[in-house]
Amino acid sequence: MTSLDSLLEAFRKGRIDAEDLKRRLTGESILKAGFSRLDNQRLLRRGLPETIYCKDKTPDQVREIVLAMSRAGQPVLGTKAGPEHAQAVADVEGLSYNPVSQLLTVPAGKCEPTGKVAVLSAGAADLPVAEEAAGTAEFFGSRVLRHFDCGVAGLHRLMDILDDLSQASAVVVAAGMDGALPSVVGGLCPGPVIAVPTSTGYGASFGGVSALLAMLNTCSPGVVVVNIDNGFGAGYAAHVINSKRTTS
Amino acid sequence: MTSLDSLLEAFRKGRIDAEDLKRRLTGESILKAGFSRLDNQRLLRRGLPETIYCKDKTPDQVREIVLAMSRAGQPVLGTKAGPEHAQAVADVEGLSYNPVSQLLTVPAGKCEPTGKVAVLSAGAADLPVAEEAAGTAEFFGSRVLRHFDCGVAGLHRLMDILDDLSQASAVVVAAGMDGALPSVVGGLCPGPVIAVPTSTGYGASFGGVSALLAMLNTCSPGVVVVNIDNGFGAGYAAHVINSKRTTS
Amino acid sequence: MTSLDSLLEAFRKGRIDAEDLKRRLTGESILKAGFSRLDNQRLLRRGLPETIYCKDKTPDQVREIVLAMSRAGQPVLGTKAGPEHAQAVADVEGLSYNPVSQLLTVPAGKCEPTGKVAVLSAGAADLPVAEEAAGTAEFFGSRVLRHFDCGVAGLHRLMDILDDLSQASAVVVAAGMDGALPSVVGGLCPGPVIAVPTSTGYGASFGGVSALLAMLNTCSPGVVVVNIDNGFGAGYAAHVINSKRTTS
Amino acid sequence: MTSLDSLLEAFRKGRIDAEDLKRRLTGESILKAGFSRLDNQRLLRRGLPETIYCKDKTPDQVREIVLAMSRAGQPVLGTKAGPEHAQAVADVEGLSYNPVSQLLTVPAGKCEPTGKVAVLSAGAADLPVAEEAAGTAEFFGSRVLRHFDCGVAGLHRLMDILDDLSQASAVVVAAGMDGALPSVVGGLCPGPVIAVPTSTGYGASFGGVSALLAMLNTCSPGVVVVNIDNGFGAGYAAHVINSKRTTS
Amino acid sequence: MTSLDSLLEAFRKGRIDAEDLKRRLTGESILKAGFSRLDNQRLLRRGLPETIYCKDKTPDQVREIVLAMSRAGQPVLGTKAGPEHAQAVADVEGLSYNPVSQLLTVPAGKCEPTGKVAVLSAGAADLPVAEEAAGTAEFFGSRVLRHFDCGVAGLHRLMDILDDLSQASAVVVAAGMDGALPSVVGGLCPGPVIAVPTSTGYGASFGGVSALLAMLNTCSPGVVVVNIDNGFGAGYAAHVINSKRTTS
Amino acid sequence: MTSLDSLLEAFRKGRIDAEDLKRRLTGESILKAGFSRLDNQRLLRRGLPETIYCKDKTPDQVREIVLAMSRAGQPVLGTKAGPEHAQAVADVEGLSYNPVSQLLTVPAGKCEPTGKVAVLSAGAADLPVAEEAAGTAEFFGSRVLRHFDCGVAGLHRLMDILDDLSQASAVVVAAGMDGALPSVVGGLCPGPVIAVPTSTGYGASFGGVSALLAMLNTCSPGVVVVNIDNGFGAGYAAHVINSKRTTS
Amino acid sequence: MTSLDSLLEAFRKGRIDAEDLKRRLTGESILKAGFSRLDNQRLLRRGLPETIYCKDKTPDQVREIVLAMSRAGQPVLGTKAGPEHAQAVADVEGLSYNPVSQLLTVPAGKCEPTGKVAVLSAGAADLPVAEEAAGTAEFFGSRVLRHFDCGVAGLHRLMDILDDLSQASAVVVAAGMDGALPSVVGGLCPGPVIAVPTSTGYGASFGGVSALLAMLNTCSPGVVVVNIDNGFGAGYAAHVINSKRTTS
Amino acid sequence: MTSLDSLLEAFRKGRIDAEDLKRRLTGESILKAGFSRLDNQRLLRRGLPETIYCKDKTPDQVREIVLAMSRAGQPVLGTKAGPEHAQAVADVEGLSYNPVSQLLTVPAGKCEPTGKVAVLSAGAADLPVAEEAAGTAEFFGSRVLRHFDCGVAGLHRLMDILDDLSQASAVVVAAGMDGALPSVVGGLCPGPVIAVPTSTGYGASFGGVSALLAMLNTCSPGVVVVNIDNGFGAGYAAHVINSKRTTS
Repeated sequence: MTSLDSLLEAFRKGRIDAEDLKRRLTGESILKAGFSRLDNQRLLRRGLPETIYCKDKTPDQVREIVLAMSRAGQPVLGTKAGPEHAQAVADVEGLSYNPVSQLLTVPAGKCEPTGKVAVLSAGAADLPVAEEAAGTAEFFGSRVLRHFDCGVAGLHRLMDILDDLSQASAVVVAAGMDGALPSVVGGLCPGPVIAVPTSTGYGASFGGVSALLAMLNTCSPGVVVVNIDNGFGAGYAAHVINSKRTTS
Repeated sequence: MTSLDSLLEAFRKGRIDAEDLKRRLTGESILKAGFSRLDNQRLLRRGLPETIYCKDKTPDQVREIVLAMSRAGQPVLGTKAGPEHAQAVADVEGLSYNPVSQLLTVPAGKCEPTGKVAVLSAGAADLPVAEEAAGTAEFFGSRVLRHFDCGVAGLHRLMDILDDLSQASAVVVAAGMDGALPSVVGGLCPGPVIAVPTSTGYGASFGGVSALLAMLNTCSPGVVVVNIDNGFGAGYAAHVINSKRTTS
Repeated sequence: MTSLDSLLEAFRKGRIDAEDLKRRLTGESILKAGFSRLDNQRLLRRGLPETIYCKDKTPDQVREIVLAMSRAGQPVLGTKAGPEHAQAVADVEGLSYNPVSQLLTVPAGKCEPTGKVAVLSAGAADLPVAEEAAGTAEFFGSRVLRHFDCGVAGLHRLMDILDDLSQASAVVVAAGMDGALPSVVGGLCPGPVIAVPTSTGYGASFGGVSALLAMLNTCSPGVVVVNIDNGFGAGYAAHVINSKRTTS
Repeated sequence: MTSLDSLLEAFRKGRIDAEDLKRRLTGESILKAGFSRLDNQRLLRRGLPETIYCKDKTPDQVREIVLAMSRAGQPVLGTKAGPEHAQAVADVEGLSYNPVSQLLTVPAGKCEPTGKVAVLSAGAADLPVAEEAAGTAEFFGSRVLRHFDCGVAGLHRLMDILDDLSQASAVVVAAGMDGALPSVVGGLCPGPVIAVPTSTGYGASFGGVSALLAMLNTCSPGVVVVNIDNGFGAGYAAHVINSKRTTS
Repeated sequence: MTSLDSLLEAFRKGRIDAEDLKRRLTGESILKAGFSRLDNQRLLRRGLPETIYCKDKTPDQVREIVLAMSRAGQPVLGTKAGPEHAQAVADVEGLSYNPVSQLLTVPAGKCEPTGKVAVLSAGAADLPVAEEAAGTAEFFGSRVLRHFDCGVAGLHRLMDILDDLSQASAVVVAAGMDGALPSVVGGLCPGPVIAVPTSTGYGASFGGVSALLAMLNTCSPGVVVVNIDNGFGAGYAAHVINSKRTTS
Repeated sequence: MTSLDSLLEAFRKGRIDAEDLKRRLTGESILKAGFSRLDNQRLLRRGLPETIYCKDKTPDQVREIVLAMSRAGQPVLGTKAGPEHAQAVADVEGLSYNPVSQLLTVPAGKCEPTGKVAVLSAGAADLPVAEEAAGTAEFFGSRVLRHFDCGVAGLHRLMDILDDLSQASAVVVAAGMDGALPSVVGGLCPGPVIAVPTSTGYGASFGGVSALLAMLNTCSPGVVVVNIDNGFGAGYAAHVINSKRTTS
Repeated sequence: MTSLDSLLEAFRKGRIDAEDLKRRLTGESILKAGFSRLDNQRLLRRGLPETIYCKDKTPDQVREIVLAMSRAGQPVLGTKAGPEHAQAVADVEGLSYNPVSQLLTVPAGKCEPTGKVAVLSAGAADLPVAEEAAGTAEFFGSRVLRHFDCGVAGLHRLMDILDDLSQASAVVVAAGMDGALPSVVGGLCPGPVIAVPTSTGYGASFGGVSALLAMLNTCSPGVVVVNIDNGFGAGYAAHVINSKRTTS
Repeated sequence: MTSLDSLLEAFRKGRIDAEDLKRRLTGESILKAGFSRLDNQRLLRRGLPETIYCKDKTPDQVREIVLAMSRAGQPVLGTKAGPEHAQAVADVEGLSYNPVSQLLTVPAGKCEPTGKVAVLSAGAADLPVAEEAAGTAEFFGSRVLRHFDCGVAGLHRLMDILDDLSQASAVVVAAGMDGALPSVVGGLCPGPVIAVPTSTGYGASFGGVSALLAMLNTCSPGVVVVNIDNGFGAGYAAHVINSKRTTS
């Protein structure tokens, strides 16, 4: 179920009133925040609201945007947020920060998570990216099944969780180094598998490039790929697929 | 709907008998064909049967595999098949070859296509890859909406087809050169968008690498990526997403 | 209008006298500043004076050069200047420093800006490079129209500013990540479009290489490209094009 | 002067009648040609009509497009056209083919070339790319000054032509190998300089990458860059700059 | 057992006489063959004789070398030999050519193969490289266990052969595309595993680079790597390890 | 001799009792430590226990794992451990830390080292990687012969140690910059040679890539390669080869 | 001794008369040949005449240039000339073609070779590049000592020729694959060593890039590098160094 | 004149006695310094003593080596020495440190510099590398002519110094960014030119790779190249060439 679906449902069930709904749907198409010009129609157009990529922004820019979105009654998801960004918005009501996943969130109102998205990591070092994916999918409303440290050097760790894999609408797999796990997972479950290369490793891992290339060349069909360390993108796509399945 | 679902449905509706079903489900787990050892359990495990990547195989190898699969009553999909591969299997019953998409097919029995997958290309030169995606999704049972030549240099060509984009369970976008189209499409429709970089272009297009990188760095969430020229992988993933949506 | 044109005009209109003009035009062909040997004929040869690339120079080297140019009555533009460079020249008369664009300037005398150069950025994170381009074009005498945060994921932000785009003599577009914006802008306005890839992003953005490659492979003719983060080069070229248009 | 300007001028001066003008301006926004969907509004939107990139198209696709454009009364420019493309359209009225520049053209009616664009090449081996740039600028209506074989290993060859360089509205410089010529030209003339790396060379020239990188890192401001071997793009940009200068 | 060991053993058992032994051990340190100067001491120094890399040599050069080695009573192994090389030496006594592995051989006298080397391939397309490894190890005297088409997309094909894997002194694994198989094999058997990336694949496989990088970044210790398509090097190293084990 | 062999031997000779043996062999297949899920069957499956890659883990994660393994009676080997990791486990009984090789170890009980592994470095700067290899091989039970600073610019330093090279079961060679040493060593001794590129150097050494490529392209057969700076992998593989030789 | 020195000497000794000398020294500064504009002052400026890079030129262009140079009484050296170029100039008086080195030459009058340049190759496959270097140095007047097939896998082949190495003014070393030979040679002789990477090899040799990188990172000072396969550049530099030594 | 020549000359002229000479020539072939094993025969073999690359060594390692060489009466040249290395040897007699060139030196006895080596830099930012080259050549005994800041954007700065260029035995040219200067210098003087790419620049300069590639692809013969930032290597090679010229 998309955020837009949730919003309409909330209105239909009386959890928000007409004013609230209108305010959320009929804002200006561009929401200004300092130099930033936010895309205020995204919820209508895509079913999910705009999010904030924090990494190359100053803490002041992030604060301006978070405040503008908060004031407009929008849920807030900030990604790749460092401690300096978190500190700059620490006083915003309802905001929480996860230093592992580097996600800043002001969640929308409570609603029951729907469907199932599985999130796997190959090693303990891939945890931050896997958590970014899991946190993103949860933020938008998916139920998430986490299974970390399932690397192919010890396959029995993967066999343990085959049931969860086959029930999930989409499986996110975060792996660095040889990037082999998505190919193996792709061979074991109906998919789709969203592979996220991580920048863990050293030497010829080239900051995740080796894992990325392995994933693009997977011998298992049904595996698709996002940018290195892009847990957000993987979680977003998994949620979109999951929400379609569960609302159709 | 997966191929496995179709098969069970066909049995339930009496279109195939018990013998036929058993033969298809209880083959050896490995189907031998010359030096090749085919994965005969994939239909059971993943819901879709194994396919044949022809490009680095000799025509003789392809023929051995096609015959073995045909004899086993499996539908056949061969990808990246050159004319020399097509010629080697020209006498196989029910086989057809599309020289644009380079797909070899012995389809399963007829069934109504389900759901909607949209397939877009940026330029006329991306046609072969887009057709490979479209043909693959159709082979497995999806209904496909084709829209070619929608490059961002003339955006009005894209505005024409927004309705189709928002109704599709998944949108495949094939583009070479600057690889900009998936980002624009991703901003306009709820997704998911499966981006396929193509090797069209010259100079610093580096055989599709530039388009691939642009797609991995898309500013539109909900866009996932497959290998350069991998129309098959995109069509496969689109079908898996579409079949989940329409069967749930 | 080039700086040389301005200088001659200033003399013709009596704003500077003959001594001043001679001093500026007949300096030594090489202006020595410590180990540096500045190109003192550039104004005559190219119509615009030499500028200072600060990044790989020591603060002392930058100070020596700024002082030598100031003494010679030349306007000063220092690029990629860090706070340590700014501090080393803080006492130079007429000097100002912009920490966002990292430009150090001792402007020439006042004159009315001419023509129109548009400067766009895809995201808020591209602001420093866009400001470097805008500040450079302004330093040399162009009027600049700024439009930041126009990324292709929300196209309506671009539609708002089509009028400005079509009136500008040249359009500078700064974008990181997928580098898709110049292709879209190039398709919407008569150009020329000067694309500046920025190093924003992570993972497979490779410090701006992905954006650079996308721009070089643009499907929109009339788009030309400068180095990653080279706002100065883009602003310089835009001014040269703009000044030609407005003086011919 | 843009093509659109020329068209309006031709009407004002009675060289074409109102029917002709309307037919050219009010065609469908999308011109269909087989699978291709041409951007028929480009002349209105950008001042110059759509062109055909032939390299990754089949001869049949090129023929369909050329015929559709011809029938619609549009001038035709096909780039990177091989002999097989030329042969496929050999019977089209008014079409000519240049095997060096690989340009296919059906020119618009005659008009006096305007302004001056200079086109230089570093070596004799860069001739095809330089000719592609020159032919493109001429097709759209610029006067072109050609100077080939001006490489920096013999600088006196460049000193000969300084007058032409300083009079041109824009200077196109095609060079392979070390790509040093645009930096030297950029230091000698007011610019702008449009640098085109060529794929001549061997070994670590990497098909033009070395020249491309040298040009992007030029020490001469006012130099902008296009894709390797993209003579068309350089000629197009040079014409756009030149036409602005001469019509303003 | 090394070739040198075999030679000494053959003498001790009377299969060759003293003259023969001396001729083989006391040849000139450099064996001249046209412009080539062969390393005639390698058997003494390394235990195995010099071999011939044919790919970048002319057929005439290969013929000169093969004849010189044959005359000197040395066994001959030519690698990466095309049909043109095979034809040039077709009349050499005892020579045979395998067009799949591209190995040219004039074997030493018969002797019982020793130990066990396992050679696996991920896909049918990796057959030539796997055969090159197998043929090389056999040429030097190892017993080889072949298992082709064991890719990770269908893991049960690998489980079938675990016994052979654990008995082998060394396991060679040839794989292209995602290069995932050596990591999985490395996790299942005591090793050592010699991984050979192959150039099969397309797009971002980059002629085997993706597989190479995956293997270098393997998460399974005990995996070592050789050059892309270097079946010879893998087979050679496997034999050296195997011969040590079985002779100690 | 593998660790598993040692364990069984220890039991047979009465150095550990049946309880101890059972505890070590019949642990859970997965050993949980916080988010980490250790592969507790590796000793049985591969003959050597799991090790800990510390670099991308937090000190807390490393501590959790070390404690879990210690409690389970397993020997501990942590690699790429920084001072912060060492500090986090400083109080673990029996643990020692080598700041040069960055190895953390809790050794198994004492046993006599077996066989011979030679470890060479090209320059003094390659010491850390060479020590990582040497320390790893010693940890598992091999006898190690160290020879540092043997670069090819002074070949006589290599001639000194030929005896050691020919007696070793395996030779590890760590080299940065031009990576030439393994080729020369490979030409002088019977091998196998395990080449480890190091990241020493600057400029076009690209963090060890140049050395890696040189080693992959070695002209000496019998040379195999591991990842840049992967002293652990080289020492592990050398021990596996050595232990096979000495136990067979 | 440079060509210019030879020319002056020939005049002084009466071998050519004043007319001849003047014709050779006072030609136009630019020699036109079709589209080509040759640098006719190079002999005066650099001591050696211009040469012709044939690879990216058409046979007609090469013929025009050769004829123009011949008519002007200049010696001719054409490099990277294919059979098609050779055929186009077969009738030029005094011209000879070497299909191995791909050099086209019309030598200057006879003169005694001076000094000593050593040219080494690592393998038989590097012969063409080594011959290009040797032929170039001989063309300009150096005495050349050739030693082919000296690769580091059999060092004794190098020890044989140490005397020649230490007597040469400059040593050219052509090597592909691991590019290790120049480092070893650089450690054995006083230098300078000019390293030429060759494109022999396969897989991760990347057309000579691996050898190039190894050479740039040589651990032996006194080694300098030219482009991949640039035997001409190496031979030219070696001659320049040698001629200086022998004329000073 | 090589260092060895100087040493013998010093003995012949009575400046050192026989004991001193013997001590310097008959040291052990390997000089031990901690883990380091210095090549003590290099002076005899190559004419110049071993030098110390400091960058990847610890200050302690550098101190051990400097002390050992000092004690053995050898002159000391340490390169890429940071302040921490300088501090560690500050008390060594006769040692001096240049923080710009990062050279540590304990010079041999005084002697008159011989010949002429020219050292140029393109920009002020290339000063450290140019100084490293100049300091190295001076350390070994060459006379050095320095000309900094001669970039091609202002060619007249180069014309000033043509006399010095033509008199030098060898010309070192340090340049970053576009790396164009060596090509231009190579076209103006008889050479040889030793090009040193520097890591100055940003974006697509890739730490000096762009300059390196431009230099390898130079259109001026007689230009040879060393590693990025390798001022030492360039100065060493220039001295070797210069010393040959002046002693022959």
